Amino acid sequence: MARAAGWLAARLERAGLEDVALWPTAGHPAVYGHWLGAPEARTVLVYGHYDVQPPEPLELWETPPFTPTVVGDRLYGRGVSDDKGPLLLTVQVLGALLAAQGRLPLNVKVLFEGEEEVGSAHLGELVARRAAELRADFVISADGGMWSADFPSLTVSGRGIAAMEFSVYGPARDLHSGRHGGGLHNPLHAAAALVASLHGEDGRVAVPGFYDGVAELPAEERAALAALPHSDAAYLDQTGAPDVYGEAGYGTLERQWHRPTAEVNGLWGGYTGEGSKTVLPAEAHVKLSCRLVPGQDPEDVLGKLAAHLRARTPPGVRLELRPGDHTGRAYALAPDHPGRRAALNVLRDVYGQPALEVGMGGSIPILDTFRSVLGLETLLFSFAVGDENIHAPNEFFRIGRLYEGQEAWARLLWALGDGG
Amino acid sequence: MARAAGWLAARLERAGLEDVALWPTAGHPAVYGHWLGAPEARTVLVYGHYDVQPPEPLELWETPPFTPTVVGDRLYGRGVSDDKGPLLLTVQVLGALLAAQGRLPLNVKVLFEGEEEVGSAHLGELVARRAAELRADFVISADGGMWSADFPSLTVSGRGIAAMEFSVYGPARDLHSGRHGGGLHNPLHAAAALVASLHGEDGRVAVPGFYDGVAELPAEERAALAALPHSDAAYLDQTGAPDVYGEAGYGTLERQWHRPTAEVNGLWGGYTGEGSKTVLPAEAHVKLSCRLVPGQDPEDVLGKLAAHLRARTPPGVRLELRPGDHTGRAYALAPDHPGRRAALNVLRDVYGQPALEVGMGGSIPILDTFRSVLGLETLLFSFAVGDENIHAPNEFFRIGRLYEGQEAWARLLWALGDGG
Repeated sequence: MARAAGWLAARLERAGLEDVALWPTAGHPAVYGHWLGAPEARTVLVYGHYDVQPPEPLELWETPPFTPTVVGDRLYGRGVSDDKGPLLLTVQVLGALLAAQGRLPLNVKVLFEGEEEVGSAHLGELVARRAAELRADFVISADGGMWSADFPSLTVSGRGIAAMEFSVYGPARDLHSGRHGGGLHNPLHAAAALVASLHGEDGRVAVPGFYDGVAELPAEERAALAALPHSDAAYLDQTGAPDVYGEAGYGTLERQWHRPTAEVNGLWGGYTGEGSKTVLPAEAHVKLSCRLVPGQDPEDVLGKLAAHLRARTPPGVRLELRPGDHTGRAYALAPDHPGRRAALNVLRDVYGQPALEVGMGGSIPILDTFRSVLGLETLLFSFAVGDENIHAPNEFFRIGRLYEGQEAWARLLWALGDGG
Repeated sequence: MARAAGWLAARLERAGLEDVALWPTAGHPAVYGHWLGAPEARTVLVYGHYDVQPPEPLELWETPPFTPTVVGDRLYGRGVSDDKGPLLLTVQVLGALLAAQGRLPLNVKVLFEGEEEVGSAHLGELVARRAAELRADFVISADGGMWSADFPSLTVSGRGIAAMEFSVYGPARDLHSGRHGGGLHNPLHAAAALVASLHGEDGRVAVPGFYDGVAELPAEERAALAALPHSDAAYLDQTGAPDVYGEAGYGTLERQWHRPTAEVNGLWGGYTGEGSKTVLPAEAHVKLSCRLVPGQDPEDVLGKLAAHLRARTPPGVRLELRPGDHTGRAYALAPDHPGRRAALNVLRDVYGQPALEVGMGGSIPILDTFRSVLGLETLLFSFAVGDENIHAPNEFFRIGRLYEGQEAWARLLWALGDGG
């Protein structure tokens, strides 16, 4: 991590940025640099991350994970798509513009963190402490990803997240289900009933107040969504699921991007080995995360979930709730945001076809951090694609995207700057 | 195992039994011997097992598990209560009677198996093959156990068992719950809903037909049950559970001994480690066992469970059912069975107070085996007590029970024999 941060700082200096520094955090340092020579122009804050996921399982890699390897028109290696490739091309563009013109068309601050893959645990504290130095008009993120390799796209919304865990406790230790079954409540029965109570038969979340503040998608956005090149059949092919499923009355993309969910990520209790062991288990555990949309507050949603679970805990067991390690509000970039308009134009010019405006079911915590701590919106402008095996063996980056990305970033900076 | 079987065979020969042999099975051998010198009298088949549970975890033992150690009025060691102590005293009684009288008051066949702790996997095959040699009036089992150390008791019923596993499959692999959540069904949600559907709010099993053939306990048996020295408060103290729970309208002992259950013994899926991993899991797994009462057939109950689960499997997931490795019908010894009447008299004489007639929530597969294969009822006549840490560290046997048991077995054989 120290070598990667040092390498990146040196690279920023060579590109011509000023005040390049490693900004220490309680974890890994962030790398900062800026060029502020256009006092009349906008200031953008470029974000990316230099840390990567662990490469395991190593035996599934077809090339060495930390030796970038070109195979056909792809570059293979851990982090090439998330986020080293998309991050590096921003540095190359800044360096090229400074070398060619001696200046940039607008003021640029660069902040590359080293903890994105572990939840950006210290980023909030860092940007709060450095708020004055990070002042900008908005953020442009090199992290993110396009929806498909077949169409240019711009991600303009992301769901928020609120996570919790709960445990249900019964007897003090596992008991014999023959001797004790029928006499005491089984924590797995109670946990299953609590989980089942989270949803109605219509697939809607049945927690009272869960949808408070959630607006229906405007008709024109719904129509645009319906016009996107999505096929449930192709999606089922890709995921291997028997069928799509979810809240009645909404299509798959609308459910994934614009409707909130309550999702159990893990559930366990009792005997889980080979064969049978007839226990009445002492405890059951559930990991739960909600994806949120605009209008929902994570703490409010967690409070409603807690109240729902407490109210439905049956006699004979004890409920324990614990906060999860994720919260973040949903994100949506306004249709008239200058970054969004400029980015759509640039993508159309680079790819020769209009870019799709898409949502994102997942949550990027930094979007919430930049907005809540610095008051800044974030434009996601990444040239990674969602199918590039990120967080998995054989991660790759399409080499052509490196050049498309460089052209697009250069055009974007010009469009947003005093040349635009 | 081979040394234990050989030791036991030698001990039976020394006691004066005839035709002593190790009867091979596909697993560990059974030890057989008989004395058939009372042609006018009954024949009883004495059952016990010489195998024991593994001693682990060793660090929790306060004495060496395989060095029998007397501490106060208890003998500590693996198997002393289950079932070596209760088994050995039957051999001592047979040997003493033969030494003193030169004969027994009735014909005795002895069958000690070596696989009880691994489910008596080969016992059914063995007794079917040896049915002619095992012909008897009924079985007396040295395995079993008294309900409490404070009162003599006779266990006159045991629940049956029917086990199964099921899995719910969704996408082909774990997916990101942000990107995919809301688009596809979550196998943990579906599994939890299936588990929750097994019971109503009243604690009753909600599987259609589950209670078919189940009779209410006659009023006098219910009254006898209510008169037993049971306290819910003491039971909760002992188990650490917050409260008793179960089918509405029945007391704790009635629910545990005389009402059927459907109990989840294990349930798991998704991410179960430290922290969070926001997956939409590919699969969820459930281990389930039902305790049965007279009138229920295990295969019939499993069929009804399967039909219930299939009918309630929602779209978007696939259900897979697998048979469990336990089935057995419930057991109940008729009130007028000669063994039951004789045993109650003997216990009253030995202990100076009437013996309680109690049920057993658990299932002893050999009871079903002896009835279904040999057509024989079984009298449980053990002097172990349920609190003696069987299957756990620091297993012990009350030394006084060894003498009480010897006296009781001798009296029982006389009562059932030509001296009775």
